[in-house]
Order: sequence, then structure tokens, then C-alpha cells
Amino acid sequence: MNARPARTSARSVDDYRETIEALLRPLAARATEAVAVPESLGRLLAADLRSPVELPVFRNSAMDGYAVRAASVVVAPVTLPLAGVIAAGQDGRAPLPDGAAVKVMTGAPIPPGADCVIPVEDTEADGATVTVLRGRSSGEFVREPGTDVKVGELLVPANTVLAPRHIAALAAVGLARVPVFAPVRAAIVTTGDELVAAGEPLRPGQIYNSNGIALAAAARADGVAVVSVAHSVDDPRVFRDLLATATRSADVVLTSGGVSKGDFEVVKDVLAPLGGVFGSVAVQPGGPQGLTVLDGVPVLSFPGNPVSTMVSYEVFARPVLRELAGLPPVTVRAERLVEPVRSPAGRRQFLRGRLTEAGVESVSGPGSHLVAGMAWADVLIDIPAEATDLPAGATVHVRVL
Amino acid sequence: MNARPARTSARSVDDYRETIEALLRPLAARATEAVAVPESLGRLLAADLRSPVELPVFRNSAMDGYAVRAASVVVAPVTLPLAGVIAAGQDGRAPLPDGAAVKVMTGAPIPPGADCVIPVEDTEADGATVTVLRGRSSGEFVREPGTDVKVGELLVPANTVLAPRHIAALAAVGLARVPVFAPVRAAIVTTGDELVAAGEPLRPGQIYNSNGIALAAAARADGVAVVSVAHSVDDPRVFRDLLATATRSADVVLTSGGVSKGDFEVVKDVLAPLGGVFGSVAVQPGGPQGLTVLDGVPVLSFPGNPVSTMVSYEVFARPVLRELAGLPPVTVRAERLVEPVRSPAGRRQFLRGRLTEAGVESVSGPGSHLVAGMAWADVLIDIPAEATDLPAGATVHVRVL
Repeated sequence: MNARPARTSARSVDDYRETIEALLRPLAARATEAVAVPESLGRLLAADLRSPVELPVFRNSAMDGYAVRAASVVVAPVTLPLAGVIAAGQDGRAPLPDGAAVKVMTGAPIPPGADCVIPVEDTEADGATVTVLRGRSSGEFVREPGTDVKVGELLVPANTVLAPRHIAALAAVGLARVPVFAPVRAAIVTTGDELVAAGEPLRPGQIYNSNGIALAAAARADGVAVVSVAHSVDDPRVFRDLLATATRSADVVLTSGGVSKGDFEVVKDVLAPLGGVFGSVAVQPGGPQGLTVLDGVPVLSFPGNPVSTMVSYEVFARPVLRELAGLPPVTVRAERLVEPVRSPAGRRQFLRGRLTEAGVESVSGPGSHLVAGMAWADVLIDIPAEATDLPAGATVHVRVL
Repeated sequence: MNARPARTSARSVDDYRETIEALLRPLAARATEAVAVPESLGRLLAADLRSPVELPVFRNSAMDGYAVRAASVVVAPVTLPLAGVIAAGQDGRAPLPDGAAVKVMTGAPIPPGADCVIPVEDTEADGATVTVLRGRSSGEFVREPGTDVKVGELLVPANTVLAPRHIAALAAVGLARVPVFAPVRAAIVTTGDELVAAGEPLRPGQIYNSNGIALAAAARADGVAVVSVAHSVDDPRVFRDLLATATRSADVVLTSGGVSKGDFEVVKDVLAPLGGVFGSVAVQPGGPQGLTVLDGVPVLSFPGNPVSTMVSYEVFARPVLRELAGLPPVTVRAERLVEPVRSPAGRRQFLRGRLTEAGVESVSGPGSHLVAGMAWADVLIDIPAEATDLPAGATVHVRVL
């Protein structure tokens, strides 16, 4: 006799997703590491960063021009003796002689005594003197220390994903290394006697293993470090050994296959006795799901049809993994159906769809084996559990892939 | 005497950007390389990929259940002898005996002679026989070969940035390696005697070098391979040597500093005699710009103030580099100004801005040295060259950083 759970016993998508999220969210407090600033692009900052210096570090010139006392150029034109030249990077600590000018390059220190800079465009020079054609007020074209950032001031707050503009600021204050969160580490274990690695010849009954490669790519795209991708034949000892390795090195384990109602469900057979909960979620594709905490590590067990695996990842794992990586949430928006859609009652359905000028159309069929067709989709069309017939023009939510 | 180019001689932002784009676009025909499918995430596909196999590869079951002839189950319930079990991965070439059933798992081959699958939920079995409670028509729950993709059918078109769903499809048809474009290679050469590497102590007049690190991060974020980041003191021989190295290994060279009106403009001094065009673009920050083709390699010379460098990259280099990497264009959208803005006449201004509920507000000041302040910006506010006073509530375009 086969168990026949009533449809109503299936958990809702949101309920199941929230269960997974509650298991994974504690990873927000995971380990941190120090990385070199030039290698920090896209990393999630683990602490508030305050500036160890003030910027500008010293009074400097905003222009190529002449540093003078504003009092010397109140009446213009006026010709002043030239007391020297300060290039960017030079010391610039010699005071400006009374009534003189010093040539300064952009970024060069302003000599003590000078309080404004006359842009080179407003001058005429002959080597010994400079004629200032237009006067300036005290402070003009002078960059004062600390006007960009002060010592101890917040530069970049914790939980920022470091973008080039943040990295520019960190480099400008001389920080060499910054604390970032280690990425969440995922291990992937696919199962199935029928699966063969790419490049191998197919014997009758065999297919290529796409789930390991596809789950690894999806996790990486969401900021996860994929520490291993292993494949298990449908032998409980082999699967159990691979799982033990996976839980030793990863924060979360993703498995595919072996969770359904067949005679050889290696994932369910191994994990259910270890406390795994295997059951039905009211979703299509991806109905059979398993969830186990093994050696303290959450193990998410997705069904093995390639589209089921990817939709399960997308719906149940991706939102929380992106949250943990500090990445923007999955984009969900309303679109109009280009054509009518039928859907089974009682199950939320995620159809592969493509955006067009007119709205969203489904691509490929609903079959969970249509993995090539999925490549043409750019969204998942989210059909509510209670909808069975949606007319063309109906508004649906789509999740952008 | 100093040259004083009239403001009207400055080139427009769009004109200058288009000149740079015309120089860089031929890189769309750059070298390709073969990468392993699991390493192909985010790479730009260099050729149409057609399927070397059909999917499904063989007739297989969409369900855990019993493969039968539909003719045997026209009248249900009906009890059939059980002729065996076919698991996924098994051969499945033995024909179905007349009037019998074979147990099949999802993905298992359908034996010759069977033409539909009865889901396990609609059966009762005792080991020797199976009772089918509900009949099915020919074809139900049978996946026919080639219904997902046929041999030679387009799987993923050239110029696709490979996402997990594409990688799933490539893996499913057994492709091990795929042709992708090599990334555009950039070399970065910063200049300035005043610049010191992070971690070193600052002497008077010195500042930390942020431009090399920031430009490298920005280029990497746009899919560019940064092959070198070098710094040159303001010595023409040193700069010339570093440039020669850069042009040997890169498709494009970015320099910062040394392009303005000072006495020690090493970039302009070296490159202008080699055919470089140095002049003024009607933009703030980032007015002084240089463009050279050296040893066949475009050299984009940005001014050295950190904000000028980054805005120059953003406005002149980023759009075409993203296009070459197959990445989506920079997002530009209309926003309302939260506060009034003043801008110099005749120059398009890019202010650092931050989005709020009420619209966009400027952060930090307009000064091109305010690199720490730039970290708080999430957009550049694009103020047209002709605008001098924009009131609060005015609509402006912003470029999302």
C-alpha cells in the first residue's frame, strides 16, 4: 500500500520558505575575515569603518595657480614677486613671504600665510613675478583639512556591500585591510544512478547531471561560496558519507533527488531516520521537499527533476541567501499575461516565462524535465494556488531570474 | 603666458563619450576562449550553442508509477501482473509483456510496448500484481524524446551572459566546455609624486593613492579583467616605461592625473607628442581629459582628483565597457530634486546624490577631492550644461552607481 497524503496536508510555499529562512538566518552572525582593500569588491562589510585620518590631510590647493594672501590682491591687477613653486607631493612648510606669491599645483600644500589661490587662468607670469588679474577672497580654492572626513568619522557602515565608491574612500584614508563577512559556504550533493558527468558517453537509461553544476552556479550568483559539488549513486552508505563530508565544511547543504515516492529514494531513506522532515509543499514544480538539520547544518533536499531543483532553489533558498550576502532582494513585479494560463487547483505554480512588449508569455511547458526550455525564460510566472484558469490580460507576479 | 581656451571650445560630454566608444567598440571582436561549463557563470557566450543531443534522450516516465499499455486500463479498476521494476538509470530495453505492468521511477525508461504511466497514487500493489484504480490515455506521464530540445536546435544564442539557467541547459545536454569572449583587459597607470600606497606613513604634502584601487574595482565590476595597476612618479621616463608595459598586455589603458594646466603634467607631457589629444570637456568634475592611441591601444587619461577620476570613468568608460561585457546598461532615470541646485554655466555637472523617499538630494559638496563623501552617494545627479539654477522639485536625470 502506498501512503496517499491528502492535498490539504501540503505546506504552503510561504510557510515552508519561512521555515528555511528561520534555519538559515543565524548565519548572519557567521565568521569574519580581513581582506585587502583592492580585493574587497562586492564583499559584505562586517563592521562600521571610521576614518583613521582626516581628509584633506593638509591644506591644499584646489587649482593650478598662485597661493597669496587675499589682502595682497584686493586691488587687481597687481604684480607680486614670485617666491617659489610647490608641486603636489612637496613639503610646503616654508611660510609665504609678505606680499609675495607662490606657484602651487592642484593638491599641493598651501604655504603658511597664504589664504587663497588665484587660478592660473587669472594670471600672467614672467618667471620672476606674477600679475594677478582678478582678486580672490580668503579661502577661495583652498581645501581645508577635515572638510571631507574627520578622524573617527563614519566612512562606510557595517553591512555595506563594498562598491567601487566605497573602495575609493577606504583607499583614500589609507586603509589596507577591512573586515568582511566570510561568504556563506554551501556544499551540494546530487543523487541518482541515472546521472553521468558531462563529456562521458551516455548508456541507455542515463542522462547528464546538470543539477550539481546548475545549483553551484545559482548559489555563486547569490554570493555563496560553493565548497564542494559531489554526486552520489543511490546507495545510502555512499550518500551518508558524502553528507558527512559536506556538513563538516559547509554552512548549508543542498541536495537534489531522492525525495519522492519511488522505491529508491536515497535522500529520504537516509535523512528521515536522522530527523529529516520529508513532505509535500503545495507548489509545482518542486512539490516533494525535505529539510534536515544534520550535525547542526541545515540540509535542504530538493527534488531531482532539473526544473524542480532550480525552482526549489529560486523559491526557497535564494531569498535568504541573497539577504545573507547583503545582495538586493529578488525582483518581483506585476505583469500582464499575454495568453491564458491553466493551473492545477491547490498548488502554487511557477511557470517559466519571458517578458515581451505585451506582457509575459510562458515559454517551454510546465514539465519539470524541460531544462533546455528553461534557458529561454527570464522570469518565473507565479500563479497563486487558488487560480485554475487565468485569462489573457490577467495580472500576475513574476520573479526575475 | 598661459593658454586660455574659451569655454566654448570644450567638447560636450556626449561627443567625447562617443569618440571613446568608437575607439573601444572594435574590442567586441576580441579573442575567445573555451571555459568549462561549471566555470562559465557570468561569461559572455561567443557563439550560438546548439544541442548535440535531444532531450529527453529517451522515452521516460514523468512519475513514480506503473508503465502499461493504455489499452490494458481502459476499464478500471483492473489488476495487472507486475513484470518488473525499472529504476532511473536502468537500461529498460526489455519489452513490456502483453497485459502486464512494469513499475517505473520518475526518469526511468519506459519499456517498449508501454505507452502511458499510472501514477503510484492511483494504484494498489501487492508485490505480484498492481491494481490500477484509474485508467489513463496513451502518452500520459510519458516524456517523449526531443520534446525539450532537438539535436542541432539552438540552446543558447551568442552574446548571452551565462546565467544559472543557461548553465543548467548546457550541462543537461552534456556540454563540457563552451566558447566565451575573453574579458576586455585593462591596465591602470596612476601618476603623481604626492601619492603613497596604503599602509605607508604619510610625509608632509603626501596623500594616499586611491585612484588605482578605485579604478580597478570599477573596471572589475563592469566585467573587465584588470591586468595591472601601476603607479608612476612624475618622471616622463618612468611613466613612458609603465605605459609601454601596459599597452603590451591590455586592450585599454586608463591613466589618472597629469592632464591639467600645471607645470608638471607627466601624462600630457609624454602622450601629447605621441599623438594624444588633450583638452577640455564641458563637464564638472573631470574637465581636463586626454585620449591617445599608443601602440594600437586606446589610452584614456582622466584627471587625478579622486572624484574626477571616478566620474570620468563612470561617464566616459563605463557605458562601453559594460556593453562589451554584455552587461545591462547603466540605469538612468528621472528623479525630483529635494533641494535647489546651482551649477556653473556651460558645463554639465555630475553631483554626488542620494535617493530618498522625497527624491534625490546631493551629498558631500561639488569639490572633486571629496572622495570620502562620494562613498555616501548612490547616484550621480546629471545637471545639464545649460542649467545654472534648478529649484527644489525640478526633475533631473540620475545615473545609478
